[in-house]
Amino acid sequence: MANYQKTTVGDSPRTELHEKLGLTGAEISVNTMPAGSCVPFVHSHKQNEEIYGILSGSGKAVIDGEEVPLQKGDWLRVSPAAKRQFFAGKDTPISYICIQTKEHSLGGFTADDAVIEK
Amino acid sequence: MANYQKTTVGDSPRTELHEKLGLTGAEISVNTMPAGSCVPFVHSHKQNEEIYGILSGSGKAVIDGEEVPLQKGDWLRVSPAAKRQFFAGKDTPISYICIQTKEHSLGGFTADDAVIEK
Repeated sequence: MANYQKTTVGDSPRTELHEKLGLTGAEISVNTMPAGSCVPFVHSHKQNEEIYGILSGSGKAVIDGEEVPLQKGDWLRVSPAAKRQFFAGKDTPISYICIQTKEHSLGGFTADDAVIEK
Repeated sequence: MANYQKTTVGDSPRTELHEKLGLTGAEISVNTMPAGSCVPFVHSHKQNEEIYGILSGSGKAVIDGEEVPLQKGDWLRVSPAAKRQFFAGKDTPISYICIQTKEHSLGGFTADDAVIEK
């Protein structure tokens, strides 16, 4: 496998990067939902922690029944077992990325894992 | 630990989300570099795959000596051993997120790990 892979994400409602980039440690999707819409189901996870980053617009998440307002610049970590659903704003679309990683899978963080070459 | 954590990222040059969100499967940073600047070193990793997503502006990466142009919407996976350095455009700032996960750590991808509640 090459030492890197690159792709470009346009304005699609949902782009999954796993296969496009050959990801082995994360599933990442880039999503846009129109105003007034929502993910049409509540879901949880078995093993995967999810991280959401809001790229533009606003909306909300409902996590175990609690409403969490979301706008550009907000980042959320959601535990695997939490029951979650995402909504665009009533009058505002929302664009966000969703990152799934296996809970407790990261051994070395930046300071431990990086090697400075010069 | 709560079933979720939330933080808001402003215009800082670099915000690391690991401690702010209690991440256990990824290190994520949100970065902005002014026009004409670069990360002042080349680096590689021991175990961690890195994924870069360009949020705005443009610039380039140099990966094992190869120039890779970058602009808003581009996403890159970089293998742990690859030697990499990132540059803002000569006349253009660049904002990007960097996600580190342990290579080969993800077991179940979306279709296997998600549980639909209703």
